[in-house]
This record gives sequence, C-alpha cells and structure tokens, in this order.
Amino acid sequence: MSNQTKDKILETATRLFYFQGFHGTGLNQIISESGSPKGSLYHYFPEGKEQLAEEAIVLSKRRIGAVIQHYMNEFVDVGAALNAHILAMADLFDVENGLEEHSYTMMPFGLLAAESAFMNERLRKVCGDTYKYWESIYYTKLIANGFSDEAAVTLSKAVSAMIEGAVTLSLSQRSNEPLLNISKVIPALLAQYK
Amino acid sequence: MSNQTKDKILETATRLFYFQGFHGTGLNQIISESGSPKGSLYHYFPEGKEQLAEEAIVLSKRRIGAVIQHYMNEFVDVGAALNAHILAMADLFDVENGLEEHSYTMMPFGLLAAESAFMNERLRKVCGDTYKYWESIYYTKLIANGFSDEAAVTLSKAVSAMIEGAVTLSLSQRSNEPLLNISKVIPALLAQYK
Repeated sequence: MSNQTKDKILETATRLFYFQGFHGTGLNQIISESGSPKGSLYHYFPEGKEQLAEEAIVLSKRRIGAVIQHYMNEFVDVGAALNAHILAMADLFDVENGLEEHSYTMMPFGLLAAESAFMNERLRKVCGDTYKYWESIYYTKLIANGFSDEAAVTLSKAVSAMIEGAVTLSLSQRSNEPLLNISKVIPALLAQYK
Repeated sequence: MSNQTKDKILETATRLFYFQGFHGTGLNQIISESGSPKGSLYHYFPEGKEQLAEEAIVLSKRRIGAVIQHYMNEFVDVGAALNAHILAMADLFDVENGLEEHSYTMMPFGLLAAESAFMNERLRKVCGDTYKYWESIYYTKLIANGFSDEAAVTLSKAVSAMIEGAVTLSLSQRSNEPLLNISKVIPALLAQYK
C-alpha cells in the first residue's frame, strides 16, 4: 500500500462529500469508486468516515485557499482580484454541460459546514476555521490596498459571507447569476469603505 | 387519523431536516419523535421522505417569507427593516444556551439547498424557487423605497446571498459575528445604489 492509494481514497472521498454530503456518502461507495481494498481505507484512515471528512476539509481549505491567493497575487487592486476570483467560480457553473468533476475543488464548502454545524463538533470546528483562514487572505489583501484595519475586518467577513451564499444560491438555482451579481456589487461596497 | 397527526409529522420532519439534513434523518426517527404510527406517515406522505422534504421546504418558504415580510412591514426604510431582520436572526445564535428548538424556523435553509443541489432535482428546484420568493420580498421593498428596478434586482439578490452565507458562517463558527457584520455592511451598500 502506497501513499498513492491514500491519496486516491482521499480524493474520491472529497469529491463524494462535495456532491453528496457527509451523510449521503457511504464508506462502501468510497471504497468502490476509489478502487481500493477496504483494508487500505482502514489502514490510512483508522477513524473511518469522520477522519476522511476532516482530511477532506483540510485539503479543501488549502486548495481553495491557494486559488484565492492566486487571484490576490495576480492583481494589485483587491477589487480586480475579487472580481477575477468570483468570475472564475461563475465559469464553473456551466448549466448546459453540468458541473465538471474536476471543478469540485471550487464546490460549495457550505454543505459540509451546514451538515456538521449541529451534528459533529469536531468537523464543525474545522469548517469554521477554514472560513476564517480564507477571510484572512482577503483581509491581508485589503490591508495591502490601504484599507483600515476596521474596514478590512468588516469587508473580508462580508466578502466571505457573500461568496458562500452566492455559491449556494447558484447551485440551488442552477444559474451563475447569483455569483455574477455579487461580482457587480463588491466594487460598490469597497468604494464605500475606501 | 387527523390533520393534527399530519401536522405533527411534518413539524417533526422539518425540525430534523434542518438540524440533521435530509440524508442524516431517517423515517424511523421521524416516526418515533413525532409519536405517530408508521401507517400515518405513509397515509399522509405516500412518497415518503422525498415528499416530507418537499413539504418541509414549502413550509419554510412560507414561514421564513412571513418573517421577512413582517420586518419589511414594520419599518418604512428598507435599511432599517433589513437591519431588524438580520439582528433578530443574530439573536437566535445564543452561544451560551445553544439554539432553541423553536428557533428552527430561522435555520439555515442552505443545508437542504446544498444537499439537494446534485442529489435530487425535484427538491433542488423547490429550494431554488424558495430563494427567489424571498428575494422578491426584498425587491418589492426596495422598489417601494424608490430604488430603480435595476438596483432593486441587484440588491435583492446580493442581500439574499449575504444572509444565506452569513447564516452558514455563523453556524459554522458558533458565533453571530458574521450576521452582525452584514447588518453593518448592508446600509453602506444600499447608500451606494440610492
């Protein structure tokens, strides 16, 4: 058994958790879709589904964090950077062709966050910390753009809430309009605090 | 078997779906917590869990819609109305005492929306329509406050996304700070469009 096996199990679990949620995904499906023997799963993830979910959340924290950081680095202006980030998410909602499997790195973190909110304190905490981490990336960029500490705190949290909500609405309405809409609204909001 | 039995089953199912999600809630738990015989459940909800979920979503659509409308009626100014609505939600997040069971009428709709997004097209549609209905209440109030049609469309969708995201973040971080934060941000946003 190699690290490749571990990675494959974790990738499969992460994808399934995003599309089906924690409760909607069974260990047997993870085993069969990853093509790994049951023994490997318990070897690498002795705590089973909860451990897999925690590692999936941490993986998403890093990956989505890297995507956010990429857009923050690409533009000097925080408005332009947020715009590019949100439009990239909107592009993934291709209604005609359905969501591509590769796009799950941008999927709604909200499903795992909402599922764990009352049901699993350990996962709830990891999800809560993940949102704070993403907010810290927006915060740092706002500070670099000359916003005051108070404005950067307020705006980074508001941007985080807007994006999270817009992703959920876009998925639920099968339309990227909610995401496109907040990409229009955020520059107006930033202007108010500059 | 009376309508009271039907209502009791639906209330129990709605509460459980909010706290545990669709996949995390089994019919047996609904039956046992509602104190109703299995036969009643299938008598009133012949399609089982899917039908219960659909009726729970429609119930929430009306109830939460009535709460939103209540705040829109209470204040002439749309900013004041939204503020009161969001602060009332923030009040429900009493970290010390935990969420009260009666407060589930304000719970995150996002869990059912996210769960159904890929897994159940029928429920996905009902959730998507629910968000549009709530947005229409904000829209009407914005128009009554003299906002242009274009501004009212943009703002009603943005408010909807912000509230949805802030509720998810508040639950996930066990803090009403994300909700309190958007209550500060929305007046600034409205000012930009007036």
